Amino acid sequence: MSLLLALAAAAASPAPASPPQKALAPAEIVAGAPAADWVAIAPSDLLVMDLAPHSAQRPHRVVIQLLPAPFSQGWVGNIRKLAAAHWWDGTSINRAQDNYVVQWGDPDGEDKAKAKALPATLLTVPQSEYVVADFYGREGGTADSIGYRIEKQTSRDPYAAMTTFNGGFPIAGADGNAWPIHCYGTVGVGRDMPPDTGTGAELYAVIGHAPRQLDRNIAVVGRVIEGMEHLSTLPRGTGDLGFYKTAPERTPIRSVRLGSDVPDLPRFEYLGTESASFAAYADARANRRDAFYIQPAGGVDICNVPVPIRRRK
Amino acid sequence: MSLLLALAAAAASPAPASPPQKALAPAEIVAGAPAADWVAIAPSDLLVMDLAPHSAQRPHRVVIQLLPAPFSQGWVGNIRKLAAAHWWDGTSINRAQDNYVVQWGDPDGEDKAKAKALPATLLTVPQSEYVVADFYGREGGTADSIGYRIEKQTSRDPYAAMTTFNGGFPIAGADGNAWPIHCYGTVGVGRDMPPDTGTGAELYAVIGHAPRQLDRNIAVVGRVIEGMEHLSTLPRGTGDLGFYKTAPERTPIRSVRLGSDVPDLPRFEYLGTESASFAAYADARANRRDAFYIQPAGGVDICNVPVPIRRRK
Repeated sequence: MSLLLALAAAAASPAPASPPQKALAPAEIVAGAPAADWVAIAPSDLLVMDLAPHSAQRPHRVVIQLLPAPFSQGWVGNIRKLAAAHWWDGTSINRAQDNYVVQWGDPDGEDKAKAKALPATLLTVPQSEYVVADFYGREGGTADSIGYRIEKQTSRDPYAAMTTFNGGFPIAGADGNAWPIHCYGTVGVGRDMPPDTGTGAELYAVIGHAPRQLDRNIAVVGRVIEGMEHLSTLPRGTGDLGFYKTAPERTPIRSVRLGSDVPDLPRFEYLGTESASFAAYADARANRRDAFYIQPAGGVDICNVPVPIRRRK
Repeated sequence: MSLLLALAAAAASPAPASPPQKALAPAEIVAGAPAADWVAIAPSDLLVMDLAPHSAQRPHRVVIQLLPAPFSQGWVGNIRKLAAAHWWDGTSINRAQDNYVVQWGDPDGEDKAKAKALPATLLTVPQSEYVVADFYGREGGTADSIGYRIEKQTSRDPYAAMTTFNGGFPIAGADGNAWPIHCYGTVGVGRDMPPDTGTGAELYAVIGHAPRQLDRNIAVVGRVIEGMEHLSTLPRGTGDLGFYKTAPERTPIRSVRLGSDVPDLPRFEYLGTESASFAAYADARANRRDAFYIQPAGGVDICNVPVPIRRRK
């Protein structure tokens, strides 16, 4: 925050001898961020899903970054077990609903007679795990000390008292509690009616406007960091809720592995959400002053500040 | 507004003799809305774009509802002229950037030597038309009397002092001014650097999270009301900003016509944004109490309250 103020002050009164500075676009700020502002992502925190290709030209690999502690770790643990067991191999993408989600897993999961058996070691995670209680106490700080708080810019998230970033992921909070947020590309756990919370075997990715009504109602477990277009461009299903009506419409999943089990996987890194570069980037997302813009918005919602992620050089 | 309070009161103290009422999902409220709450859309307010089909199975028609007065009418007028002149026939979709926009028009538009000539009657629209000044005065009312105001629910739009609906479209406002909003499916006018505002010959549709930073910086002219999936599933371009690198990647546009010039076009209607049904629907979007949900959000952003639109029976 003080950094932002410093930046604003610098912009208001540049040193007389220096040439006028061009207002940077968010992408320019990201491109100029020093290496120290980037945070490497451990391959063991990646889920790598290989799909049957639609054409010979492009690989159909989707890379998902799993959510770090303290959020959703019961489900994330199940997902690690499912990947280790190669459980998703031979399952499929079964649903694509426009402006909502693409969903994958066992197409026969609803039919107990035909459903694929799950590893016996999966945990049943309680609903209480949708939210982390006493979040600031756990983190050894206060709301002010944690990440880059969007409401410093706007004070106006429609869904929560505060939004911020933690460990590179967007989170929301109120009354000392905190929970992960559904944005474009977020991966969550499909479930039946409550109190069921899902195992993690049935997953979805958001392919439209942020469905924030799902926050605290369903487990967020990660986000797509590469290959999103292989999900977002899938033909939409014509059944209820975008489910495919016939088996041939489903995209087969060849394999899902943890990144640490994939040879030659590129390394990835995200722009640290507590770095000065990220603060400048978020400020620019909220107040576009680069040449294309004539009216800075004066605010931004947290899902419109996607955390920059790239392959590590 | 009073209606919402009445609904809330009814929910809090049901008549003792009546059976407990199931909380309705937004879709159930829409399905139950009386015919009088629906507003027919004139075919002359529709733009019908027919694309070359990717496969024999499905038609590739995209239907766009043009924005009503008083917003963006300079550009909307140009678009009516361009459609009447069959100007888009033989042009193409030239850009698909994931989580942002699909864009179409003359692929050679940037090259003055090759660009397709525009009708001489197109207007040059000034930047001031991005915003409607003294909106409430024009409408003969106050902010409170216009449409269903989302901030009655949440008071917290990150981008504007207030958001509401007018003529079935989402708008934002501050200081007496008002402007249309970019949501999923919104159609806007591509342009060069300011003060250029675009003619309307180059159009885009939003295929991701609402890019509200474009509000007041670029003209909103309508929204996709049918066939959105033919845009949202297009292969993403691999050039800068998602432009296709080669001509064969572009999807040809066979024709674009005003709805009033298309034989046998279905009629469409939207749920009137000043109807009681819409107020109940918006309230349910902000506070999901149907069986799947355990924690109502207590708020909603205006782009997460898509105006229900359907074919008229």
